[in-house]
Amino acid sequence: MKDWKEIKSNLLKGDRRALAKAITLVESHRPTDREMAEKLLKDIIPKSGNSLRIGISGIPGVGKSSFIEVLGLQLIKAGHKVAVLAVDPSSPISGGSILGDKTRMEELSQNKDAFIRPSPTTGSLGGVTAKTRESIFLCEAAGYDIVLIETVGVGQSEYQVSSMVDLFMVLMVPNTGDELQGIKKGIIELADLLIINKADGDTKILAENAKTTYQNALHIIKKERFWSPMVLNCSSLEKTGFEEIKEALSSFDEDSKKSGHFESNRKEQSQSWLDSLFQERLFQEIKENSSLNSQFEKIRKNVQDGKATVREASSEMIKLIKEKL
Amino acid sequence: MKDWKEIKSNLLKGDRRALAKAITLVESHRPTDREMAEKLLKDIIPKSGNSLRIGISGIPGVGKSSFIEVLGLQLIKAGHKVAVLAVDPSSPISGGSILGDKTRMEELSQNKDAFIRPSPTTGSLGGVTAKTRESIFLCEAAGYDIVLIETVGVGQSEYQVSSMVDLFMVLMVPNTGDELQGIKKGIIELADLLIINKADGDTKILAENAKTTYQNALHIIKKERFWSPMVLNCSSLEKTGFEEIKEALSSFDEDSKKSGHFESNRKEQSQSWLDSLFQERLFQEIKENSSLNSQFEKIRKNVQDGKATVREASSEMIKLIKEKL
Repeated sequence: MKDWKEIKSNLLKGDRRALAKAITLVESHRPTDREMAEKLLKDIIPKSGNSLRIGISGIPGVGKSSFIEVLGLQLIKAGHKVAVLAVDPSSPISGGSILGDKTRMEELSQNKDAFIRPSPTTGSLGGVTAKTRESIFLCEAAGYDIVLIETVGVGQSEYQVSSMVDLFMVLMVPNTGDELQGIKKGIIELADLLIINKADGDTKILAENAKTTYQNALHIIKKERFWSPMVLNCSSLEKTGFEEIKEALSSFDEDSKKSGHFESNRKEQSQSWLDSLFQERLFQEIKENSSLNSQFEKIRKNVQDGKATVREASSEMIKLIKEKL
Repeated sequence: MKDWKEIKSNLLKGDRRALAKAITLVESHRPTDREMAEKLLKDIIPKSGNSLRIGISGIPGVGKSSFIEVLGLQLIKAGHKVAVLAVDPSSPISGGSILGDKTRMEELSQNKDAFIRPSPTTGSLGGVTAKTRESIFLCEAAGYDIVLIETVGVGQSEYQVSSMVDLFMVLMVPNTGDELQGIKKGIIELADLLIINKADGDTKILAENAKTTYQNALHIIKKERFWSPMVLNCSSLEKTGFEEIKEALSSFDEDSKKSGHFESNRKEQSQSWLDSLFQERLFQEIKENSSLNSQFEKIRKNVQDGKATVREASSEMIKLIKEKL
């Protein structure tokens, strides 16, 4: 991977192999790769940004893969280029993405206007999401105007993904159980679009009921904005309901741009990304500062020996830093 | 709440109302309350620590409340005092705990040797977990030798809770679907004890099968430690299987203490709590530092204007701080 400039020029032409290589560069932990990745990213930044970034979340079993397969193909038919990225923090100990993403979306992965990237296989959730953010830029620079970011895994990653997309979609299965609804409240609050999948066969009526229930729930939960969250039904099996979903996506795109939310939301997102990256690096820096650390060690020991509470110790550590700033 | 010393002395006598007041103090955002809370915590620290801290996790619908009700009552019958704390980060936007915890555990909440505390209603997950940690100390100082920390909500909170307990328990329902199991891998890796609930009636056989499946899965996943994670079946409805669970809890308690893991794990936990508290406060401190901030503002603006990548900007910010340390 010596020639990042070659990767760049091919990527800008829309070459899928170059895009894949660029993402590998961004995901790499090797310092030389990292350096090239930074140069590459800086160079392609002016060419990035021109997509609708869509987060897709949903608990296991809702049929995310087949949904993305159908939606992706229909978006391509409508003239879009579709990239799919996955965020999977579900296994912090052993690492690794659970399923081969490409085998899950067979037809889509073979389409020349689609790009599917399995989730990064190592690193903390924070690290994974940083890489995903950078991968989004790369996809955009390669001409993908729809970037789907799929959360693989439960709960944990939804907030991370919602902080890097323009539109957050939650996929559900027909279920009107009270407890489930209550618990999902946090996720539902993030949703711009709520899709009830499996609106077919035996579960079709259930899906209709669920739609009404969720519409009422969203009505109560959501604050007024430029956009009122929508609830839509679909069947990935029968490929129904996708016209409405595509329409909702373009309405959202249009409305959020017209209202100025699109722009301000992206600015906010990059600022809070900067905050968290800064915070992470600063902490690392402090860890490596030997003079501070010998003092910190004493404070830490007091906590271990039960001589100080964690709160007291953190105050002391802050005091030491504050003197220097 | 003027007299924190009175609260303290009543708390140390095991008074439940004093314990409730102390937790309210710890949860309060008012600076005067906060000050009292710190004094109180410092004073009770030598009396804390003497419990088995047990995390209980499980997706909605597994029957956590009725499980805790049955387990709690049986532990009390065996001579323990049981405190139940809930962590609920599921609704970061509107805040608030979803269900009244006491009404969910009717018999347990009325038992004089039980203390049930609903989850803190405001704050970020970080804030909520810090308060939960401190509440654990308060429960211990009040004589509770079993502290159950229940995660209300999905995913997000499991890692937080596992970082503050001695033993992490995952509750499941009979289900041998492959996808579900794959996705839960991250959570299962955290589990010391995996309980299959609803081993009764129609689902009894399913529960037996699930037990075998999970036993095999744990066998593959887990590294060797002082303890091999166990899979147990129970029925909260028929109150069966709880003898085995109680036995597993005491074996774990004994083994982890004998091996030194109990002690070292607690030390590690308090150190990483200190790290995260320090980090959070440091960032706040920097935000309030006006000379740094005027320089940071310029850097931030470069990101907004597309003149710098987030990574570059964070490097610049770090450089500015590094010069001072």
